[in-house]
Amino acid sequence: MAAQATFKSIKSLVPLLDRVLVQRFKPETKTATGIFLPSSVTNSPLNEGTVIATGPGAPTKEGKVVPCNVKAGDRVLLPSWGGNAIKVGEEEYYLFKDNEILAKIQE
Amino acid sequence: MAAQATFKSIKSLVPLLDRVLVQRFKPETKTATGIFLPSSVTNSPLNEGTVIATGPGAPTKEGKVVPCNVKAGDRVLLPSWGGNAIKVGEEEYYLFKDNEILAKIQE
Amino acid sequence: MAAQATFKSIKSLVPLLDRVLVQRFKPETKTATGIFLPSSVTNSPLNEGTVIATGPGAPTKEGKVVPCNVKAGDRVLLPSWGGNAIKVGEEEYYLFKDNEILAKIQE
Amino acid sequence: MAAQATFKSIKSLVPLLDRVLVQRFKPETKTATGIFLPSSVTNSPLNEGTVIATGPGAPTKEGKVVPCNVKAGDRVLLPSWGGNAIKVGEEEYYLFKDNEILAKIQE
Amino acid sequence: MAAQATFKSIKSLVPLLDRVLVQRFKPETKTATGIFLPSSVTNSPLNEGTVIATGPGAPTKEGKVVPCNVKAGDRVLLPSWGGNAIKVGEEEYYLFKDNEILAKIQE
Amino acid sequence: MAAQATFKSIKSLVPLLDRVLVQRFKPETKTATGIFLPSSVTNSPLNEGTVIATGPGAPTKEGKVVPCNVKAGDRVLLPSWGGNAIKVGEEEYYLFKDNEILAKIQE
Amino acid sequence: MAAQATFKSIKSLVPLLDRVLVQRFKPETKTATGIFLPSSVTNSPLNEGTVIATGPGAPTKEGKVVPCNVKAGDRVLLPSWGGNAIKVGEEEYYLFKDNEILAKIQE
Repeated sequence: MAAQATFKSIKSLVPLLDRVLVQRFKPETKTATGIFLPSSVTNSPLNEGTVIATGPGAPTKEGKVVPCNVKAGDRVLLPSWGGNAIKVGEEEYYLFKDNEILAKIQE
Repeated sequence: MAAQATFKSIKSLVPLLDRVLVQRFKPETKTATGIFLPSSVTNSPLNEGTVIATGPGAPTKEGKVVPCNVKAGDRVLLPSWGGNAIKVGEEEYYLFKDNEILAKIQE
Repeated sequence: MAAQATFKSIKSLVPLLDRVLVQRFKPETKTATGIFLPSSVTNSPLNEGTVIATGPGAPTKEGKVVPCNVKAGDRVLLPSWGGNAIKVGEEEYYLFKDNEILAKIQE
Repeated sequence: MAAQATFKSIKSLVPLLDRVLVQRFKPETKTATGIFLPSSVTNSPLNEGTVIATGPGAPTKEGKVVPCNVKAGDRVLLPSWGGNAIKVGEEEYYLFKDNEILAKIQE
Repeated sequence: MAAQATFKSIKSLVPLLDRVLVQRFKPETKTATGIFLPSSVTNSPLNEGTVIATGPGAPTKEGKVVPCNVKAGDRVLLPSWGGNAIKVGEEEYYLFKDNEILAKIQE
Repeated sequence: MAAQATFKSIKSLVPLLDRVLVQRFKPETKTATGIFLPSSVTNSPLNEGTVIATGPGAPTKEGKVVPCNVKAGDRVLLPSWGGNAIKVGEEEYYLFKDNEILAKIQE
Repeated sequence: MAAQATFKSIKSLVPLLDRVLVQRFKPETKTATGIFLPSSVTNSPLNEGTVIATGPGAPTKEGKVVPCNVKAGDRVLLPSWGGNAIKVGEEEYYLFKDNEILAKIQE
C-alpha cells in the first residue's frame, strides 16, 4: 500500500543518506494496436525504473560519505521486494537504499 | 497503540541520542466543500510529518557524535512502519531514529 | 510478570554497565473528584518514569567507558516494550539499557 | 517469478557493486533421439550457468573496491536458492552476489 | 531442566571466560510462623542470587581480557530468562554471562 | 535434493573463496558376507568424506587471503546439516565453507 | 542423532580451529548395589565430559591464533544444547566450540 503524499510534485522530495528515489515503469495499459488491457494483466509493477533523485550517500563508520552508485536519470533494475512506496497524485514512486539497486540499464 | 502522556506540552520532550520527534500530518476530516469524512476514510495516519525536536546525535564507536540529518521544522517523509508513538492530549507524535527518516520535503 | 524482590529498599539496587533503573509512573486510581477507577482502566503502566539509578556506563570495544545519557532524578520517556521488571513491595521498577530510553521530559 | 524486462538485449544490463549476472543452463527439452520431454521433467532450472557480466566489485569499509572472483564468460556453479531473476524475452537470467557463486567449472 | 552434576561440591566448578556462577535465592518454604507453604507457591526461583565464582573475563578482539563486573560473594539481580542451570545435590546453580547480570544488591 | 551436473568429471569444479568440495563416504550397500542391504538401511549419507578440492581462501576485511585449513586428499568430519549438494553422474558431492569442516581424520 | 563413524579410534580425530572434542559422562547403568537401571532412567546424557582433543584455536580478524581455554584431559561442564555428536563404536562424542564450554571441573 503506497501512502498518498500531500505535496504536489515529486521534485519536493529530497532523499536522505544513501536513499534513491525511483519511478517504476508502468506496464502499458493498451496494446500497440490500441486495445486496452484489463487490470489483471497490467497491475503488477515492473522491476525497472528511472532514478528521480538520490541522497548524498551514507557515511562510513569513520565518517567519510560514500556517494551513491546511481544518479538522477539513470534507468535501473530493482529487486522484486522491498523499498518504501509513496504515491504522488496518480504516480507511484519508491525509495530504495543505494546498494539494493541491482543494475543500471544502458541502451 | 500510542501511550497517553502525563505532561501537557510536547515541548517538554527532549529526544536522546539520534532520535527524532515527529508530528505526523493528520488527514483532513472534512472535504474542501465542508463535508465531514467518516473515520474509516480518515483514520490512517499519513507518512509525512514535521520534525519537532531531535537528539544531539549518536556517537560512533570511536566516540564522535554524528549530528542528525534533519532539524526542528523540517517536513519529512516517514516509513510506513516503526517508530514509537506517544499521545499528548489529542495529538499523536512519533519518535524515529534519524536514519529511519526517508527524505525531506522541500516546497 | 515482575519478580518480587527480597530486599526492602530499591536504594539497595546498583545497576551494572549501561543499565538504568526506572520507576514507571502509575496511572491515577481515582479521578480528580475522588471516584475510584476500576483496575481495567488503570492497570496499563504508563510509558513514563523517573530514573532511580544508573550504571557507570558500558565500555567501548577499546575499553573506554561511555557514561549513560540520563541520571538519577531524570524524568524519562520509555519504550512500550522491553526492560526487566522487578517488584519491591508494592512498587514495580524496570531496568532498561541506556540507549533504549527514548527522551527526557523537562517541564 | 521472474519479472519480464522491457529492454531487448541482456547486454543493456550493467551490474552494480559485487553483483554477477548469470544465464542459467536450460535443461534439454528433447532427448538425444529427438523426443520432446514434457515440461514436468524439464522445468527445474539447472544449478549451472554462464557469467554474462559483473559489477566492479563492492568496497571494503575502508573504501577499497574488491573485484569479483568471476568474469564474463566463466561457467559457474550456483546455489539452489537465492538470486534475483529477470526475464528478457524467452531467456531467464539471475543476479547473484559474487560471494554466493560456489565454484567455477573448467573443462 | 537442570542437569544433575556428578561432582560433590560446587567449589569444583571453575567458570571459563566471562561466565559467572550464581546460586539463586530459594523462596522460603515455610512462613514466619512456621507454616509450610505448598510447592505451587514456592517453586518459582527468585531473580536474585549470590555469585559463587567468576571466570577471568573474556578477551576483546585485540586480545585484552576484560575482568567481570561482579565477584564472588556479590549479591546480584538476574534476568528472568537465560543462563545454564546445573544441579549439585539439592541445590540449583546458574551460569550467566557477566553482562547478563543486571545489578548488584548492596544492603 | 542434489542438482545433477552437466559436466562429466568432478575435476572440472574449481571452488571459489573458502569453499571446500567434499565427497561424502557412502554406506556399504552389502555386508561383509555379501548380503545386499535394503536402501532404507543405507541411504543416509555418512558425516565423513574426502576433500576433492578447496578454494584459495577468503580475504579478511583488510584484504589478506586466509588459506583453507584442509587440503585435497584430507579425510574430514562434516556437520550433519548444511553444505550445497551437487550430483555428478551417480556420485554426490558437497561444497562446505572451510570453517564448517569439524575435524580431520588421521589414521 | 549421532552419526556412526567409520574409523575405529577416536584418536584419529583432529579438531580444526577452536573446536573441542569431548566425551560426555555416561550415567551409571547399575546402582552401587549392582541393580541394573532401566534405560528410561539412564539414557539422558550428562552435561559433563572429558576433553579428548582440541583444535589449535581460531584466528582473530588480524590473523593471530587464540588458543583454546581447555586442553586434553580437562573435565568440563557442557551446555545442554548444541555441539555436533559423533558415534565411534558404542561411545558418543561431541564437538563443541571452545567458547561454548561453560566451566572446568577441578576436584
